[in-house]
Amino acid sequence: MQGKITLVGTGPGDKDYICPRALQALEQSDIIAGYKTYIELIKTLFPEKQFASSGMKKEVDRCVEVLELAEVGNVVSLISSGDAGIYGMAGIMLEIVAERQSEVPVDIIPGISAATSAASLLGAPLMNDFVTLSLSDLLTPWELILKRIRAAGEGDFAVALYNPRSKTRIKQLDTAVDILLQYQKPETPVGIVKQAMREGQQVVLTTLGELKNADVDMLTTVIIGNSQTQVINGKMVTIRGYRL
Amino acid sequence: MQGKITLVGTGPGDKDYICPRALQALEQSDIIAGYKTYIELIKTLFPEKQFASSGMKKEVDRCVEVLELAEVGNVVSLISSGDAGIYGMAGIMLEIVAERQSEVPVDIIPGISAATSAASLLGAPLMNDFVTLSLSDLLTPWELILKRIRAAGEGDFAVALYNPRSKTRIKQLDTAVDILLQYQKPETPVGIVKQAMREGQQVVLTTLGELKNADVDMLTTVIIGNSQTQVINGKMVTIRGYRL
Repeated sequence: MQGKITLVGTGPGDKDYICPRALQALEQSDIIAGYKTYIELIKTLFPEKQFASSGMKKEVDRCVEVLELAEVGNVVSLISSGDAGIYGMAGIMLEIVAERQSEVPVDIIPGISAATSAASLLGAPLMNDFVTLSLSDLLTPWELILKRIRAAGEGDFAVALYNPRSKTRIKQLDTAVDILLQYQKPETPVGIVKQAMREGQQVVLTTLGELKNADVDMLTTVIIGNSQTQVINGKMVTIRGYRL
Repeated sequence: MQGKITLVGTGPGDKDYICPRALQALEQSDIIAGYKTYIELIKTLFPEKQFASSGMKKEVDRCVEVLELAEVGNVVSLISSGDAGIYGMAGIMLEIVAERQSEVPVDIIPGISAATSAASLLGAPLMNDFVTLSLSDLLTPWELILKRIRAAGEGDFAVALYNPRSKTRIKQLDTAVDILLQYQKPETPVGIVKQAMREGQQVVLTTLGELKNADVDMLTTVIIGNSQTQVINGKMVTIRGYRL
């Protein structure tokens, strides 16, 4: 009996935004594993399945558990919200399978990323070149994150910020704003999206100059415009130059 | 009779990667409009629909046509491959609706982006911060693109390259490689994906030092790793630091 691991990106959460290939993989799984918040969202769709949920910062343990379940013949889906390959579980899962010299096959099914779903609610802020950046320094040294914020400003990139602020990590966003203000005007449009396509969805437009005062937490996606970003009819749009 | 415009991201092309909300919007449309290559892909799914296809570089005309069709009461879907908000039709459509002071409602349904689907086939190369960059200088000045390539190197970002090379624009990719080689080693892993999730799919792993010699065209997505990217068991993975 050959087990299997499938990394599944479940998009923003609502089943209308999960692609058919991902739904099919979940349907065909013996066990669906993942971070407990995302498992709760998926449970309602597949009430008859077996689930294995775990807490935050338990990523390695979660992957080891998934591998052990697959090694004994289970078809296991490991879910990430958004896309499994963007700050999701795909990388660490591949690492652990290789490290253990396992021959369990691993498939990755892409999903609609948090940046993409947030952008669609705001308008079209990512129409041209952009940077995807996490402000969490749990896995990336803060000095490197600082360098990346500067590079984003230097290149006049729009910026999609993940993990902008947590309960204990509150200054990073302020520092990012201060750095970007060296390159962009205070009136640069900024979009803030919480719970995209889910109950309690919030979509707020503000500016880079006002971003420090905004209501932002760990589950918020923040999109900061570049020098070509405007608010048109209430929508945030980064102009790509078609009209020139 | 109120018309409506829906921007629909159709993902890599195969219907298994189009989210249910997008399929529903296409199903409910009177007319589906878009660039002819993408319309051909969608036509097979909705053979009974009315289609309006147009050529490349006709983006403005296409949007004006869509708006005029919606103004007289049609429900029109305008499709982009991947996500409509990433080098797609969302921005220019919102601009034209505003410019004409139209009150036709515009909805945007996100899709799985080309970078995301390519990444899922390669492994997990976009696991940490990355830059999404188009090498086409039709809509962005080449000087600005150069600055952005340098910024990508400076920030040790992985890079998802769109429009890496066309029949007439062949030097840009070579220049990008030369610049990135000032920051990254020649053995930095690079993934090349053509026709993701479609007939004729090609997935190739190479290195930054060899990228100039690779078979790359306008419909190829190129993902260049950063200093933390490795090839593990044949998969391209950007390590995010979980194991430290």
